[in-house]
Order: sequence, then C-alpha cells, then structure tokens
Amino acid sequence: MAAWRERSWWGWGWADDALDDDACRRLAETSLRPWLPIDGSVLPVPYDPVLAPPRLIPPSIMQEAFAADAVTRAAHTYGKAFRDVVRALHGRLYNPPDLVCYPRTGHDVVAALDWAEAVGAAVVPYGGGTSVVGGVEYRGDNPWVSLDLSRLNRVIEVDVVNRAVRVQGGVFGPALEQALAPHGLTLRHYPQSFEFSTVGGWLATRSAGHYATGPTRIDDFVEAMRVITPQGPVESLRVPGSGAGPSTDRLFLGSEGTLGVIVEAWLRVTDRPARKASASVAFAVYDQAVAAVRTILQAGLRPSNCRLLDPVEAMLNAGSTDGRARLLLGFEGATTALLADALTICADHGGVATSGGPPSAAPGGDGRSAAPAGDEGAAASGAAASGGAGEVASWRSSFLRAPYTRDALIRLGLVVETVETACPWSRFEALHAAVTAAAQAAAPARVAVVTCRLTHAYPDGPAPYFTIITPARRGAEVVIWDEIKTAVSEAVIANGGTITHHHAVGRDHLPWLARQRDPLVTEVLRAAKRTVDPRGILNPGALL
Amino acid sequence: MAAWRERSWWGWGWADDALDDDACRRLAETSLRPWLPIDGSVLPVPYDPVLAPPRLIPPSIMQEAFAADAVTRAAHTYGKAFRDVVRALHGRLYNPPDLVCYPRTGHDVVAALDWAEAVGAAVVPYGGGTSVVGGVEYRGDNPWVSLDLSRLNRVIEVDVVNRAVRVQGGVFGPALEQALAPHGLTLRHYPQSFEFSTVGGWLATRSAGHYATGPTRIDDFVEAMRVITPQGPVESLRVPGSGAGPSTDRLFLGSEGTLGVIVEAWLRVTDRPARKASASVAFAVYDQAVAAVRTILQAGLRPSNCRLLDPVEAMLNAGSTDGRARLLLGFEGATTALLADALTICADHGGVATSGGPPSAAPGGDGRSAAPAGDEGAAASGAAASGGAGEVASWRSSFLRAPYTRDALIRLGLVVETVETACPWSRFEALHAAVTAAAQAAAPARVAVVTCRLTHAYPDGPAPYFTIITPARRGAEVVIWDEIKTAVSEAVIANGGTITHHHAVGRDHLPWLARQRDPLVTEVLRAAKRTVDPRGILNPGALL
Repeated sequence: MAAWRERSWWGWGWADDALDDDACRRLAETSLRPWLPIDGSVLPVPYDPVLAPPRLIPPSIMQEAFAADAVTRAAHTYGKAFRDVVRALHGRLYNPPDLVCYPRTGHDVVAALDWAEAVGAAVVPYGGGTSVVGGVEYRGDNPWVSLDLSRLNRVIEVDVVNRAVRVQGGVFGPALEQALAPHGLTLRHYPQSFEFSTVGGWLATRSAGHYATGPTRIDDFVEAMRVITPQGPVESLRVPGSGAGPSTDRLFLGSEGTLGVIVEAWLRVTDRPARKASASVAFAVYDQAVAAVRTILQAGLRPSNCRLLDPVEAMLNAGSTDGRARLLLGFEGATTALLADALTICADHGGVATSGGPPSAAPGGDGRSAAPAGDEGAAASGAAASGGAGEVASWRSSFLRAPYTRDALIRLGLVVETVETACPWSRFEALHAAVTAAAQAAAPARVAVVTCRLTHAYPDGPAPYFTIITPARRGAEVVIWDEIKTAVSEAVIANGGTITHHHAVGRDHLPWLARQRDPLVTEVLRAAKRTVDPRGILNPGALL
Repeated sequence: MAAWRERSWWGWGWADDALDDDACRRLAETSLRPWLPIDGSVLPVPYDPVLAPPRLIPPSIMQEAFAADAVTRAAHTYGKAFRDVVRALHGRLYNPPDLVCYPRTGHDVVAALDWAEAVGAAVVPYGGGTSVVGGVEYRGDNPWVSLDLSRLNRVIEVDVVNRAVRVQGGVFGPALEQALAPHGLTLRHYPQSFEFSTVGGWLATRSAGHYATGPTRIDDFVEAMRVITPQGPVESLRVPGSGAGPSTDRLFLGSEGTLGVIVEAWLRVTDRPARKASASVAFAVYDQAVAAVRTILQAGLRPSNCRLLDPVEAMLNAGSTDGRARLLLGFEGATTALLADALTICADHGGVATSGGPPSAAPGGDGRSAAPAGDEGAAASGAAASGGAGEVASWRSSFLRAPYTRDALIRLGLVVETVETACPWSRFEALHAAVTAAAQAAAPARVAVVTCRLTHAYPDGPAPYFTIITPARRGAEVVIWDEIKTAVSEAVIANGGTITHHHAVGRDHLPWLARQRDPLVTEVLRAAKRTVDPRGILNPGALL
C-alpha cells in the first residue's frame, strides 16, 4: 500500500492520478470535440475548502479519534457520484460534517454512538466514501459526525481449513486480498470501487462484484457479522448454513448504516483460480447478442465474465470501431472447458469470436493491490489474462482509468453519470428503449450519448448498466442531471426494473424505492430501526 | 395425482403405504432382533380419534371453507416428527385445532385472519403438515384454527423466457414438477418431504433440497413473494437481482408462519439436466472421507449429490456390509466431466470407487410425481440414473420407504429420530463425537445406534445429519426422546453447530435458538411481528 499517497478530497481516488489541466485539454481535443459540443475550457480544481466552524466539540475522553480540519470535513461531505464531484469542484459544500470520527476499536464505536446520542448529533457511517447515491451525505439540520471506519483495518484471522477470513469493517479491498494472497486464497469480490471501498461498506450496501454470474454479490460470501447499534452489539452465528428463522445477516446486509455499524465479519474465501479462459465475440445484431447471453445463462453455464457492450461502449472502451456489439466472455477454474460451449451458443446467435485463446494459467498472488478500481477493470484483468487480445486489453486499460477520466469530463463541462438496474429478460428490450428515450428527452437540447452494457446476467434476467453523457451549462450541472435521473428512474421502474441492482439506495434512490418497497415492509424496517436506534441517530434520511 | 388415496392422519404419507401389522412383525424378526432388544409386539394403529367439541363456530360467510370433523382436526394436531407420530399412535391428541380452515383464495385468507382477530383465535398456517419441529402444533390456551393452504393450489404461470414460475403457496412438490415438465423445466428442489409438502411451507421454513451443493436452499430460488399479514398483504418486486436495502423476501423466508401467510411466489426454475454421472466410493477411514468431501468442495467442484454415509448408514441404507463408509457422488448437466476430478480427490484420500459408470442421459419428463418422499429418495434417483449400480439403487429404494419404515419402527417400540446441523469443517470431528456421546449417555441403558451422514456440504463446512435409534419403554417414548434431544442439542450448540440446518425452528428448537440468536435480533423480529400482527394471532409460540 502506497500509504504516502493522498486521496483526492473532491474527486475519485488518488489525488495524483487525476488528469491535470493539460491532460483535460488534450482529452477534449482528441476525443470529445468530434462528438460533443464543448468549449474546451477546464473547470479548475478548487483550492482547499473554507468551511463554517464545527457545531460540535469532540468528547474529551476520545478527542484524538476526531478530526475537525476543513480538508477532512470536506472530503467527508459527499460521496463520489457525478453530482458530488461537480458540487465539490464548484466549492458547493453545503452541509459538511461538523466532525469526522476515526474509531480504532469496537469500544470507540460504542463510545462515539453514546456521545452522539447524548449531544443530539447524527452519525453517518463512512467506509471508503465511494457512494454514488448520496449514502454518506447528511441532508438534515442537526449537527453531524462522519464515522470513518478506515482505522478498523485489521484482518484478524485467515482460517485456511474452513476457507474463511475474519476481518474488520474498515479493511479496504487491496489490503484484504494482500492478506489472503500468501495463503493462495481470494475473496474474488471486485466492485468498481474495489481499491477505495471497505468490507463494511460492501456489506452495508450489498455490493456486487464484477463477476457476471455465480456468487458475485457480497451477501453470498457472508458467514457472520458483528454490528454495533446504539442499543448494543449484534452478532450472528458463524456456520456454513442455517435455516434457523429469518437470517440475522440479511437484516443488516443493505441496511446502509441506518441500523448499525458493521465492525466485523467472517467472509467465505476461495482458492485462487488455477486456470482462466476468455474470448471476445462480435455481434452485428444487438438483440441476438442479448439472446446469446440469456441462452448461455439458461444453459447452466456460469462464466465469470459475461459482459455485453453495445457498439458505442465497444468503441469507447474496447477500441472496436466496426459498429458491432461485443461480448466479453471469461471462465475460471474447473469450468474452463465450458468456454467452447458458450462460443457455440454465441455462434448460434450470429456471434463471431474476435479474440480468445486456449485456457491459460491464471496470474497468481498479486493480491490485485495495485489494480485501480475494479468493477470493469478487474473483469477485464481476468479476461486479459488469457490468450485473447487487443479488445480485452483495451477494455481493461480503459476501465482502469475510467473514474479519473470521468472527473476530467466533468471539469470539461459534461454531465457524465451511470444508471444501473436489473429486470426480467422479457422486459429488457422495452426497458432499454425507454431509458434511452427518457435520458435523451430530458437532456439539454435533447442530445445525450446513452450506452448500455450488461454487467451481470442471471438465468431470469440481465443487469443493464447505462452510461449517459451530455453537455451541461456550467453551474447548472446538478439540476440537469437530476432531471435526467428522474426521467430515467421513472422509465426504469415503469418497465419492471429495480431502482438499484448494486449501487444501493442512499438518499438519491429513496423516492423510487419508496414506491417499489411494500409500505408495510417500510413499516417493519422502521420498527426494526426504532428497536436498535430509538433516537434515530444513524444515517438519518438514507434508506428509510 | 392419485387423488382418491387417503393421507394418514397419524403417520407419514399415504395411509395405504404404511406397513401393516404383519409387515411390522416381519421387519422385527428379520432386521431388528439381531440388533436391538425389542419384544416384537406392535402398537396398534388407532381407531378414528374422539376429540372434545370445537370451541369455535366458523363464520357464516365462509362456512364451507371450514372443517370440524375429528379426523381432519386430528390430522392437523401435530406434524410428522417421531414425537408426533408416537403421540398420535397412543391417542394423545392433547390440543387439537378447534377448526381447520381451507382458504381457496387470498381473499379467503384475509377473511380468515380478520375473523380470527375478531374472535381471539390463534391461527397456525399449515402447508403439507410435515414439520418435524412442532411448527404446526399450537401449545397455547386460546382456541385455534389450523389454516390449511392446500387448496391454494394453482400453478398460475410458467414463464419460459425468464425461466420462472408463479405458483400459489399450497402447491405440492409433485404438482409443481408436473406443471413444469411439459416445458422441459424443473425447480430441482427435493426436500425429504417433497411429495407431501408445499411451496409455501418450503419458503416459510427455508427448506433445503437434496442437492448437496450449489443452489439447494429454497431461498436461492425466490424471485418474489406475496404474503398476507393481519395488517394487509406484502408483495416484493420481481427482479433477477436487487441491492435495494435489506431484502423483503429474506424477512419472510424462515418466518414460519409468525409474520404472515405466504400465498404466492415467483420461483426460478431451470432446464432439466441433460446428462448425469454418478459414482459410489468406499473409504476405510472415515476421517479421510470427510477430508475428501471438504477437498472436493474447496476445489470448486459442486456435485449435485455428495452424500457421505458412515459405515452403519451404508449398511442399513445402501446394503454395503464391508464396514467402510460410502460417498455417493453425482454430477449433472454441463459439469458431468468433473466427476473424474472428484474421483481423483477421493483416491488421494484412500477412497475406492465401488460403482459408477460413464455419464448417461438423464431420465426426462416424469415430473417425479410418482416418487415418494424426496430428500434422500430423489437424490438417489439421480444417482441411480447413471451407469452406477447396486449401492445407489439400494440406497434409493431404502429411502423411498424410509418414512414409512420409521413409522413401523415406532410401532415396534423404538425411539427413532433424526437431528441435523451445520458447522465449520474444523469443528466437525468434535461435534460428531459429542453428539454421539450425548445421545448414548441420554439413551435408556445408555444404548443407542447413532449414525451420521453428510447431507449437504459447503466450502466452509458440512451439514451432518444424525439418526438415533434406541429401544423405548412403551408410553415413555416422548420423555425418552426429549431427554436425548436436549442432550444432543446442547452438544450441537456447544460445538459450534446451528440448532437447525434445514428442519426449521418451530417450537422444539426454540430454547436453543433463543441462545444462538442475538437477543437484540429477537427484539427486532418481535418489533416486526408487532407491526404486521399486532394482536399476535399468527403461530404463537413458534420461532419467537
């Protein structure tokens, strides 16, 4: 871990990985001008923020766990969505946390919650801060504390016999994989935020990794959890399976910091895959590519990578300029030989393999610690490990840099954001059309680039992931995006999609979740919250 | 469906499949005398029961939905555990339901709950009545109604495109498979009770099917559910995946009729497997067999059948008299070729294949409608489809008859019951020893046959399933069993096992669950119950 590197307080990832002004201008000239009406000016990176003084004084008994400096508070004001980065760039830090608390132990968490209850402060648990749904941003009137769990960072025990790891909630992805690598083990969970997000954050938001099928959602890796609520700790039993009533873990998975602070978990890990095989397949007819993915899944094949890019995504991200869609396929471990079956299905649907070699040994032991951002990047990393060629490699490098490029596009005056969902196969075509139409109708001058890829696929439906890019009026970016987001979200739920497949609910998705979640279930969750958090201090305004 | 056949009110399954008195005597002479000190007398099957008159009068508006005759009430008094059958045989029907209600629609369910709230009656939802944990037996003082959902028996829609089926809660296993078979589809969920249990019962109790690995618990097949609570219906969104907060379905999965009545569900189905392959492997050293199973799972292999029988189980159930343990292995569909890998791992651990042929086409389309009782039976059915031979076939026929044989053993004066759990691999050896010792120490004259098989296996641990047989004093069977059960349950939880892997909690497991479930979680579940069932009419005494 490069501990001396500084995280960006306004944008994605490492400060020194951001594109500088010149790089932004080059990007504009070489890649964007042909496409989009931009003026080429670059919104400057803001100086250190100036904030109103905190309304809270840290408790004397644990003063050293608190920070109150402006940069730290600014960095904990928002997550990392488009609307977060653009607001930070404009210096619009409306409601920064009064304090940031860094507990080092479970006792610290208990003490912090007790103190917050006593002084009437809201507490927003914060893992890596990569929320793109307003999950770590408090919008209420009370003084508030961002509870940054990054110092609960111990990998407590690697249990090789039972293929499990006991880990604290604040451990980041690379640190976990580094601890597992010497044992030949891996969690195999690579959300897009892998490098900058934590185990506790994954659990609180039910994150999905980049593997397209099979166990990919963090839920399926959980053996047991330890959660600290304002009413005390909750622990679940560590067993490989249990049918003893409604699952305790499932109650806290996806609770997004509203029911408790996830301080520890036992997670299932696995041997590093010995072999991988991958291919890239071109489809002239997009609907046939969708049908191929459906058939692969329903045939019982479970490729670890199964990512369908529409022609624009393929061009932008995999360097394919033939106007055809691309399916990136990968198999791992004992199922390597199944790639041939999947390719046969693709051929039945008009797909032509454009790259893909024989199964090869997988790269071992790097812990992926150096791999920036993961959802797409790590997927492509797997693919690129095979004999396959240019397209998967290009896809990889494109996505390694994607979040930084996103920040540059924002500085160049573009609205650029993603929307994701999942729906039954039978509804995908209509949903795809409706989302595209809604985004374009809501965009300024009714012009937007809307691309789609399938990031996950199940036998009963795909998880489509849309990228929306449109020029913005400077200063009006948030309003423009919010209008698009509203229109698109309406299109999603009108066409049977979930308001979120893996980005969580936070505050931004709440209006639609409130319409998709049965009101009686909302009442049940509120009753649960009253039981564990009677004063309602935990992440108020999120999820419920 | 042989609709004219009569279900046994006192014992398992069909009345005419029970062993008659002569068959019981033959069983005693040929199979039991050499083993166990029994006198050969046969407890008679009771005449039709005589019960106190009901304390409730059905509501006039839906009178035809209610039954009050003695046989129907008797049949709904208990589930089908050992202690249920032996009490029924002795005519000890202490607290029969006052009425049995058979709703035909969701509206009927709503009306029944409203009426029960108004008259102060408890309501115990009843699917197929195969609970072995006191899940359908009310032990309180109020008048009560058994809500038999077997007439909510429609398969509403088979959605081939999305590989899903919409089904009412009262549909039995064979009827569901019959509806799927013409489409070449199957749910592939075969709990031991398959023939006599319902979709709603599976969901309410988080049942586990017979497949040893991979998706086997009903939880993983659920797309969406419709549940009627006393406060109104709850519906979840039908999508292939969602990260939108804590899962609604997971709240009701395992709720055991305490939070609502599961009236409908969308379940994921799959193509019938085209190919199967199986083998039987003998191990002289039991610990090595356990290690082989662990290694198979941790190598990423996911056999559909992976059942380890200890030498006594192998003798009783697979006709193997060489004193060696047996591992029954099966692979299905695209993974057929993996059997060779699994057999290599077995050989590494001293295992010798005693049967097992090349992959063969799987039998198709029978809907398994004629297959009696499933957990073991259906598993063996898959295995027997291969080129493999005597042991798997013997195992199959033995388990097809097992629950009926169990009833005969009870009539012959034996205590015969099973206990199941799941624990980490590293704790299995100690748990196995402790359960065996506890059962024997608690048995009369300290003599019991205690056998163990692994019914399910995960990378992080096995699910051991113990059968305990010991002679009983006539009339004291329940007391004797309850003492053994208490001792064994203490051994299970002291050694890190869950109090139930797939038999659910009901009333019999509640004392131990109360020690394994975090008290704060119990409070949360109680708050949930107060929200949906403020008068507490639903299955009082179970789970909470």
